[in-house]
Amino acid sequence: MNDFVSLVKERRSANKFIQGVTIPQEELDEMFSLAKFAPSAFNLQHAHYVVVTDPDIKEKVYEAAYKQYKVHTASAAILVLGDTQAYQEVEKIYEGMLHLGVLNKQEYDMTVESIIQMYENGGDMFKRDEAIRNASLSAMQFMLIAKSRGWDTCPMIGFDPEVMRKTLHIPDRYIPALLITIGKEDTSSQRPRGYRKPVREFVTYQSF
Amino acid sequence: MNDFVSLVKERRSANKFIQGVTIPQEELDEMFSLAKFAPSAFNLQHAHYVVVTDPDIKEKVYEAAYKQYKVHTASAAILVLGDTQAYQEVEKIYEGMLHLGVLNKQEYDMTVESIIQMYENGGDMFKRDEAIRNASLSAMQFMLIAKSRGWDTCPMIGFDPEVMRKTLHIPDRYIPALLITIGKEDTSSQRPRGYRKPVREFVTYQSF
Repeated sequence: MNDFVSLVKERRSANKFIQGVTIPQEELDEMFSLAKFAPSAFNLQHAHYVVVTDPDIKEKVYEAAYKQYKVHTASAAILVLGDTQAYQEVEKIYEGMLHLGVLNKQEYDMTVESIIQMYENGGDMFKRDEAIRNASLSAMQFMLIAKSRGWDTCPMIGFDPEVMRKTLHIPDRYIPALLITIGKEDTSSQRPRGYRKPVREFVTYQSF
Repeated sequence: MNDFVSLVKERRSANKFIQGVTIPQEELDEMFSLAKFAPSAFNLQHAHYVVVTDPDIKEKVYEAAYKQYKVHTASAAILVLGDTQAYQEVEKIYEGMLHLGVLNKQEYDMTVESIIQMYENGGDMFKRDEAIRNASLSAMQFMLIAKSRGWDTCPMIGFDPEVMRKTLHIPDRYIPALLITIGKEDTSSQRPRGYRKPVREFVTYQSF
């Protein structure tokens, strides 16, 4: 799949977007309907997305992101959240497997019970880790999907999480994992691609 | 890019692998040399991978993963780590930009200084979040790359992090983000794909 290799190499974090480009909601919907196939722990689908295209709200997101110009010029700013309470929906998520007969009632009950226990025993740190981990897995898939359809993105953590939470009315159960700006990159002042470590520096075979 | 859409839809978490399939190191190296193009905060490249193919060591990883059979049958078990101290390499990572003249000395110094400050002021929770977030972004890209080359994967969090740390001699600075098993899926007992929420349940436009 040479196309996929090119996609991975061509996806770069955009530093600046062409202003005034609108992104249709149907276009975003199509991307999300593919993004949902990303894996998540126990298929709990912890990732939630808040999409801001309205210029006035986007301007507030820009403020919460320390006035980084790319938020101002992006077609949309998308806050990716991880749900610390995703496990509470486990019954609903596994119901289909019960109805299909893939799981019998006893297996279904055991699955539901063990997943709830794992999160409840794991405590706040585990729930937070899970929220960030699973939201990030989904976000990476989303950014590749966007690129495959000609949209550039930039994942960002440079924002005040509490201001962002207030601006977008995010309930406490969600952890802001990252902000993704999306649009058409303005490449007029594009930098060379950032240095990447050679494989041997970040991969160890067998023992550390 | 229809190929990419198929790739996203066909990548599923493998539940069982065909035993006795070996994965060559060159094959893994090629995957990692593409995975490295995943984005990371400030390009700090927090993700580290520990690849276990040796059957004896893999058997210990299997023990640390509560004897989940897929670890036993996988061609390799790959522990994905996030480096809480990745920011300490910021000078090295931005050096190229200085030498290329993309950043002048003053900009370089300010970049280095502000990144170090951000992590040092962020404290332990921020460093942990960053380790997990950036390792997960990289891991998702790795799993798609693997699938594009005909390898199936399963991301896993069901392991004892402390036992895993001891088994693979992982220094404290690294947080185990997830374990990826990789191999050729044994589809003989494959379940139907897990239920996915409709887009409207995990995407909100504008306000929550």
